[in-house]
Amino acid sequence: MNEYMKRAVELAKRGVGAVNPNPLVGCVIVKDGRMIGEGYHAKYGDLHAERNAIKNLTESAEGAEMYVTLEPCCHTGKQPPCVEAIVEQKIRKVYVGSDDPNEKVAGKGITYLREHGIEVETHVEKEACDALNDVFFHYITKKTPYVVMKYAMTMDGKIAAYTGESKWISGERSRARVQEMRNELTGIMVGIGTVMKDDPLLTCRHPGGRNPVRIVCDTHLMTPMFSQLVKTADKVRTVIACGDPVMYDPEGEHHVEELNNRGIEVVTVPLLGDHLDLSALMIKLGTMEIDGILLEGGGTLNWSMLAQDLVNEVRIFLAPKLMGGRDAKTPVEGTGFEHPDLAKKFTLVSEERIDEDIYLRYKRRDI
Amino acid sequence: MNEYMKRAVELAKRGVGAVNPNPLVGCVIVKDGRMIGEGYHAKYGDLHAERNAIKNLTESAEGAEMYVTLEPCCHTGKQPPCVEAIVEQKIRKVYVGSDDPNEKVAGKGITYLREHGIEVETHVEKEACDALNDVFFHYITKKTPYVVMKYAMTMDGKIAAYTGESKWISGERSRARVQEMRNELTGIMVGIGTVMKDDPLLTCRHPGGRNPVRIVCDTHLMTPMFSQLVKTADKVRTVIACGDPVMYDPEGEHHVEELNNRGIEVVTVPLLGDHLDLSALMIKLGTMEIDGILLEGGGTLNWSMLAQDLVNEVRIFLAPKLMGGRDAKTPVEGTGFEHPDLAKKFTLVSEERIDEDIYLRYKRRDI
Repeated sequence: MNEYMKRAVELAKRGVGAVNPNPLVGCVIVKDGRMIGEGYHAKYGDLHAERNAIKNLTESAEGAEMYVTLEPCCHTGKQPPCVEAIVEQKIRKVYVGSDDPNEKVAGKGITYLREHGIEVETHVEKEACDALNDVFFHYITKKTPYVVMKYAMTMDGKIAAYTGESKWISGERSRARVQEMRNELTGIMVGIGTVMKDDPLLTCRHPGGRNPVRIVCDTHLMTPMFSQLVKTADKVRTVIACGDPVMYDPEGEHHVEELNNRGIEVVTVPLLGDHLDLSALMIKLGTMEIDGILLEGGGTLNWSMLAQDLVNEVRIFLAPKLMGGRDAKTPVEGTGFEHPDLAKKFTLVSEERIDEDIYLRYKRRDI
Repeated sequence: MNEYMKRAVELAKRGVGAVNPNPLVGCVIVKDGRMIGEGYHAKYGDLHAERNAIKNLTESAEGAEMYVTLEPCCHTGKQPPCVEAIVEQKIRKVYVGSDDPNEKVAGKGITYLREHGIEVETHVEKEACDALNDVFFHYITKKTPYVVMKYAMTMDGKIAAYTGESKWISGERSRARVQEMRNELTGIMVGIGTVMKDDPLLTCRHPGGRNPVRIVCDTHLMTPMFSQLVKTADKVRTVIACGDPVMYDPEGEHHVEELNNRGIEVVTVPLLGDHLDLSALMIKLGTMEIDGILLEGGGTLNWSMLAQDLVNEVRIFLAPKLMGGRDAKTPVEGTGFEHPDLAKKFTLVSEERIDEDIYLRYKRRDI
């Protein structure tokens, strides 16, 4: 792998959890084989990677080469267009990793640079650069969150014993990795079943991390006022999605008001049979700038999300033990598909040993 | 890895399926850096690896070195002791992989060689050599079969849809691999549930393979006379394990007789609660020289075997799809353990990509 672009990819990752719904971008400026400036997009609203690299220059960039993981922007958003700064600096050549996925602007940054006499080479380590921004690419084109289903299971596919006990399936380092994911993705989503059973906090315990927006799918608005989620809603942004609250409960409006008073956003979503239309919910969450969601199941919610083709990625921690149990909990339950041929197909993109567990990442390629 | 011992390991594998209950053994004789003889144990009752290598010598072995995957034997069984042949050939040095696991003879072969002036180096690529003979090492010490639980499951731990449909979870090449396993292990075991549902043949479709002994756990002796297993029992050795057949059915003895007439061996086993005492069955199968079993489940039988600590190894084909289904079938069902801490722990020993599937092997270290 090209060492400069590799460095740019590493830099980009430093923005994890802080730039959403912007992309992760890293940038390195090189002259005569020396890295004379590097930067990354560190925080939503702040300088882009290219301008940070320029700011950090240790000498003039005239005649230098720039490596940037994503096509430089050519439009004015929260920041002026990066292409102008590149031209000003008299950079000779720009190596670009990923294309701008926004079809309306794609290629325009590159055209601008070339029109100003700068040589441009595209698709440099494209795969590694693209892998930085699954969330951004999905969100910018679909306007709905990129959904990552996450679970830890035993070798025989159990996420909890028949008693419901799930502490712990995977090892300590795997669980630490989950905390990193809570920092990485803007939102975290569970079903009301998980709230009732585990009364979780869903906060991020990763050092230096920020809490994800907590989203509960709670069709009949049953989230208890004494739950940890409600009690901490003044500190951590919390969203409850329900059907029409008055439909089930004449006191529904009052309940919504109470929750609002605790700082909870209650959003109503049309029903699809007896549960929430999760596609409609995803559109709504998209408008709330939630670009990515960590789906921490329950088998019922996981199934509903899968069946509505809303799961983009699956992350599995496979623990080396056999639990057994006809009534033990499995990661995806609900009705299920009636034939293996109908099962939703994914592509394995990475595997990693984490102590005794195997950590597997799969992506859906067809949605 | 030492190239000569690596070659010896490769040679040993050629005996897969043909030497049981003997071990797989490979042997290479080397002189001045040239391989001047190689051999392996090819068939139960035939020459041992060392004598085959000597038989295949292209020149005198005087002063040569021998690489053999298992400690050479020093007792007369179906063949005279190998150590005598090694001494006769005036071999200078012997490199040995695995120890002889039979405590009564362990080390004696090596002592004999040393007493006759031959240098011996032990534990050469021991891990690779040991891996050849999980079955043999277990069987020779425990006198019961080494049990390999095998299943193909989806990313969410399903071996069949809620409809029972299981064709196919894994890909074509993974399924071909299962056929190799049927050649590798002496026996194959299923529960009566699988017989009723799938009416399987359980034969080996691997080119050049031999059929495993088919073993059905059928507590109440319900295997239908019109099942494929019964209809083909004259061609393929078939064992049905049941409780006392007369206990449930006054016609039980007659049924046993009918099955015997078809060539089926009916063995009776004590009960443990409402199912067979599988530990007792394993002892019985051991006396029948069944040294290894491929356990092709059904979640109920898999659970019973696991709960009785009879599963030595688990082989999983993990297919890249999500099936869902509260009522879909999982690999290990039954009651299950009530807490993740009680789940049976295994050690991952290998992982391999087979087209889109991941093939995982786990071994139990504590039984």
